[in-house]
This record gives sequence, structure tokens and C-alpha cells, in this order.
Amino acid sequence: MMGDRVLLSDLPLRSDLVGHKPYGAPQLTTPVQINVNENPFPPSAELIADLTASVAAAAADLHRYPDRDATELRAELACYLTRATGIEMGVDNVWAANGSNEILQQILQAFGGPGRTALGFVPSYSMHPIISSGTQTQWLQMPRLADFSVDMDAAVSLVAAQKPDVLFVTSPNNPTGASLPIADIRRLVLASESMVIVDEAYAEFSGRPSAITLIDEFPGRLMVVRTMSKAFAFAGGRLGYLAAAPAVIDALQLVRLPYHLSALTQAAALAALRHAESTLASVAVLISERNRVVAALQLLGVTVVDSDANFILFGMFADAAAAWQAYLDGGVLIRDLHIPGYLRASIGTPADNDSFLKVTEDIYAKMKEQ
Amino acid sequence: MMGDRVLLSDLPLRSDLVGHKPYGAPQLTTPVQINVNENPFPPSAELIADLTASVAAAAADLHRYPDRDATELRAELACYLTRATGIEMGVDNVWAANGSNEILQQILQAFGGPGRTALGFVPSYSMHPIISSGTQTQWLQMPRLADFSVDMDAAVSLVAAQKPDVLFVTSPNNPTGASLPIADIRRLVLASESMVIVDEAYAEFSGRPSAITLIDEFPGRLMVVRTMSKAFAFAGGRLGYLAAAPAVIDALQLVRLPYHLSALTQAAALAALRHAESTLASVAVLISERNRVVAALQLLGVTVVDSDANFILFGMFADAAAAWQAYLDGGVLIRDLHIPGYLRASIGTPADNDSFLKVTEDIYAKMKEQ
Repeated sequence: MMGDRVLLSDLPLRSDLVGHKPYGAPQLTTPVQINVNENPFPPSAELIADLTASVAAAAADLHRYPDRDATELRAELACYLTRATGIEMGVDNVWAANGSNEILQQILQAFGGPGRTALGFVPSYSMHPIISSGTQTQWLQMPRLADFSVDMDAAVSLVAAQKPDVLFVTSPNNPTGASLPIADIRRLVLASESMVIVDEAYAEFSGRPSAITLIDEFPGRLMVVRTMSKAFAFAGGRLGYLAAAPAVIDALQLVRLPYHLSALTQAAALAALRHAESTLASVAVLISERNRVVAALQLLGVTVVDSDANFILFGMFADAAAAWQAYLDGGVLIRDLHIPGYLRASIGTPADNDSFLKVTEDIYAKMKEQ
Repeated sequence: MMGDRVLLSDLPLRSDLVGHKPYGAPQLTTPVQINVNENPFPPSAELIADLTASVAAAAADLHRYPDRDATELRAELACYLTRATGIEMGVDNVWAANGSNEILQQILQAFGGPGRTALGFVPSYSMHPIISSGTQTQWLQMPRLADFSVDMDAAVSLVAAQKPDVLFVTSPNNPTGASLPIADIRRLVLASESMVIVDEAYAEFSGRPSAITLIDEFPGRLMVVRTMSKAFAFAGGRLGYLAAAPAVIDALQLVRLPYHLSALTQAAALAALRHAESTLASVAVLISERNRVVAALQLLGVTVVDSDANFILFGMFADAAAAWQAYLDGGVLIRDLHIPGYLRASIGTPADNDSFLKVTEDIYAKMKEQ
């Protein structure tokens, strides 16, 4: 093949990337896929029809560049957030990109970078340190307690002492599941001088108020990142968004790549938003299924971390990697995030969850035999 | 509005961004839009139907993340490049992203960054220095000659002396129009030790061989960036791609954001590639129109820079900004790239070009009166 006589090790790669592997869960085909916290319910026929018609209309102008500012989409996202949180907001309070990863990268390009630091409470979303490093922002971290909660007194002392330029708060936290009370988030903002990113990818699954309710108190400091990949069942469409003060959106406009959001993405996301009510009806089903799965696991003697999201972290396994493989052998793809003793499973359809519980039963029975 | 009492100047923006404006041409609605080098011919009805059906099929799985490696799309891009260049290549020779800007950003994240330099021959594509700066890569530049060609002897000396980590070569060059002979590109690669990016956004409009023909000679050094925004009439779909040795693609996998390319983008771009032959038939029309426009301008006494692309740089204007406004007042949106005395116009439909020539005639007549 063209050029295949050179190896990656022959290239002048940046030294901080040498030896790294591409980030991402294994993409395997299995009967049950509960590894990446997707909404297991496919889009409705009505949504597919509306999205298809919207894309067909947008396709007629596909030779033209898209609206660079995605104005209509951002306005509709603002309407959705206003309905969800009760906080009035407009188009200038919202930014959108190809997944929340791109939003996070833009935030770090604007407010992080060489000579600046970002701090998070680990384990949390693995992309936070990777995107920090990718933007040359020094990554600092504080470990969570044994139950994966944040030791708030220690956290308040640490952020006051370390003065990170950017502070990551993930609520509900991925991959552990619990959310942080809004009063704790407020304490962290008050204790720090940081630009605070509250990553609310799983917000729709949580009963707690959104940190969006704090933005007007801390307009120059607080940003709330959301995604349509989870509750909105739009992981394939790639749409992340941000709620913040207009000045923060202005800052991201300085680092965004022009025309970063395609006309098709804008049209498809607008269609998905028009069907928000029916899509988000699945949230109640998933919460009820989560409660059922947690109760069934606890009956089996499984340790389950409290979850306010559409997934659970559970264990304990003497060898989590071997247990992950045992699930895979049983046709169930879950996620090994290398947290000693634990694995993560998304809440799937009732049938997915039954399969997961059946395989779990077998695995735990074998573990007890040994 | 929520949080609107803070200003951009209140935020701890990175100092290198302070005072910047967001990059991008004015997005205005005018009868004739020949400002951003789009293909003026809309997608065919057959392409729209195929694309719509493809998107409808992909939408059924929109709750799932897309193929993170975009394998099918990259394989089809490789087939297209093989047909276009005669060079055999496979999926491992091609990478794809949301526009060539994202490809360039990934290249600079992998091979540029703090402590490294990138060099280009200016004026050229304005995003090269912006993306370099956005990835903290120090930007170096060498001015082109008065006719906007590259002084090859000086360039060879400069790259040998400066040893930039990344060298940008744009061919055909935007916004000036001429392409660089392949022998000159080879000389620059030989004279430098750089990772060389040949930006071939306008390659389909040029009669010269692609720099892809040089990759097998310099597999660890040479990368060719392409886009579907121009000849492919897919600007709204946002699809840039790269031809390189497999090891270079491996390097970009280390910095790409996971699932950067949506399932809809992948499906739509595959549909566009299936209709490549009919879409690219417009290239011959545009080249013939370019020749007609250039001849008509020269008859009017207008200076036109040699173009191997779907646009022309022309002048001379005592006040290019005032002339840009005069075109706009005449209903014709063209581009002012702040090259003293010059403006850029894309080649549009025959009717677009007639309007452009008519307004030009009026503007030059008034200039002669003064």
C-alpha cells in the first residue's frame, strides 16, 4: 500500500503523544450493546420522516456553506433548555458543535492551553484529561472517595490552593453515576477562581436541578455542557451544546473552525428537537429500568454505585478484564474503564437488561464456586 | 438575557486571542453569491434522492454512535483518489473529518504545537496561520512575489535555514489562483525536513498532477489535504479528507476527537461520492466559464492573476474595500481578503458571471471617469 514502509515511530510526532493509543471503546457487534450509554430506543418513525424531509430540503443547497453561526439551531436549543430548567435564555446563551467533545476542546482552546491548568475529580469522563492534554493544558486531578463521591471539604481546599484555570465538574458523573448537589457545585465555584465546566451529558436522567440555574450568579465563570447523544437518542448525529453567558459564546467564536457544523447536522438536530417530547419519554422508562436492574443486582449481592444516570458502575470483580470478557462471551458488550474491581453497563431496553442480568447471574454464580 | 452583564473583556481569555475577531466571510443574502468559491451548481435531483434515502436509512440507528473510523467512507474516498490520480491507495491511506480545517487542526495537533513552527507562502489560505496559532504552533511566513508566484530559490533557502516542523504548500493557491508545478513541490520537500501539507482544496480545477503522486517517495513527510466543498459541490456537508501514508493516519487517530464524523455526514458523503462523475462534470463548465470571464476582464483592462482554480484574484483598485462595496451595491457578493488593490471572485453560473462582468464594467467605467 502507498507509503506503508514508514511506521508511526518514524514520524516526528509530538513527544506527549508517543506511545498513546486512540481513545475509544471497542466497536464490536454483539446481540446486546450496553457499553457506551446510548439510549437503546431507536428514533420514532415520525422523527425519521421529519428528519429525512428536513435533510432533503437542506440537501438542495448542499453546494453552499452552512449558516456558520447555526442561529436557528441554537435558538431552538435555548427554547429546549428554557423549558427544561425554567431559566429564560436566548440564542446568545447557547453554542453548538459536533458533540460535546468539540465544545470542550473549544473551551480549553479559549481558556486553557500552555501555561494553564485544568482540574477534575477522577474517575470521571476520560476525555477531560485527553482534551486538556490535546490543547496543551496541564491536567491536575483529585481522586474521589471509595464510594466515588467527591470529598467536598478537600475539594474546596484543593481548588483554592491550586487555582486551576479550568475546573471540570461532571454531574451526573460518568462512569460512576451519581450527581453532585447544586449547593456543592456552588461551593466549588465560590471556592475557586476557575472557569468552571459543568458537564451535564446525563442531566435528563437526574432529578437534581441543572447548574444552568447558577449561570446568572456566575456569568463570567460558569459553563454547562450538554449533549444530544444520551437522552435525545442522537449519538449518531453528533450534537453537543453549551449554555453560558453571551460573552463566553463570543470567546468560543474566536477558536471555532469556520463552518464547523454541517447544514445536514443543523437540519437533523432541529428535527430531533421538534420530537423532544416523545423521545424524552424514554427517560422515565430508562430510570424505571435502572431501578429494576439495580434491585436485581443487589439481590445477587452485586455492589452497585448510586446512579442518577442511564448506566451503572458495579462490581466487585477480582479480575474486571476477565469479567468483561465473560460478558462479551455471553453476548453482552459492556465497558471496562480500568477502575479496579468495577465494570460499567448502560441501561438498555427491558430485553437488553434481562440478558445482562442473566449473564450477571451466571458470572457471579461461577465466581462464588471458585 | 442570562449572564449578559459580563463582557468578553471580563473573561480570562488566552492572551493570544485578545482583540481577535471570529474568522469568516460576511454571510449576506445577495442575488449573486460568488464570495466563498462554492460550486454554483446545486446537487442533481438524483443525488438529492440518493442522499435522502441514505440518510433515512442511517437515521434508523441514530441512537447509536457512528463508525468511529468511518471505514466505508474512507475506502470510497480512496477509490475516488485512485481513479483521479492513477495511484493505488486503500482505506489506510485516507482520513476524513468535518471539513479540511479539522484535518489541518489534527495535523498540527500531532506534528505542530508549542515549541514547533509552521511556514507558509503568503498570501494563501487564511486558516493556515489561524489553525497554527490555535494549536500554539509558531507561524512563519514568506511573502510571494508581486505576481503571487513563489520565488523558488528563496523558498528553498528559507525552508532549509528555518527548518519549520510543518510546511504549507497550497496548490492551486487560494486566494491567488495559480498552482505550483509538481517539480517545485518536490524541490521544497527535498530542501526541507518538514512534514509537508499540500493543500489541494481546488485540485479538481487544475490540469497539473496531484502531489499524491509524490507520497510514495516521501511517505513519512508528505500529506495531501482535499475537500468536498469545492468541485464536489458539498460545502454544506462539511467533508475534508487527507491522503497520506498509513502511519500518518495512525498519528491523526491519536488526536482526533472520538466519533468526530456523524453517521449522517458519512452517509451523505458516500451518496455524494456515488454521483461524483455527474457532479464533477461541472468542473469543465467552470473552467470554460473562468476562461471566458478572464478574457472579458482583460478586454476591460482588468489585471487578472493566473488561475488554475474556480476563482480569480483581480484588480487593481485604489480602494479595494470601496470596490467590494460597489459590487455588493450591484447585487454581487465577492471577497475582500485585504490584499492591497485586489479582490477575489468565484466563478459562478454563466448568469452569475454575466452579472459580475456587467457590474465590473460599470465600476471600471466610473474608475476611468475619476
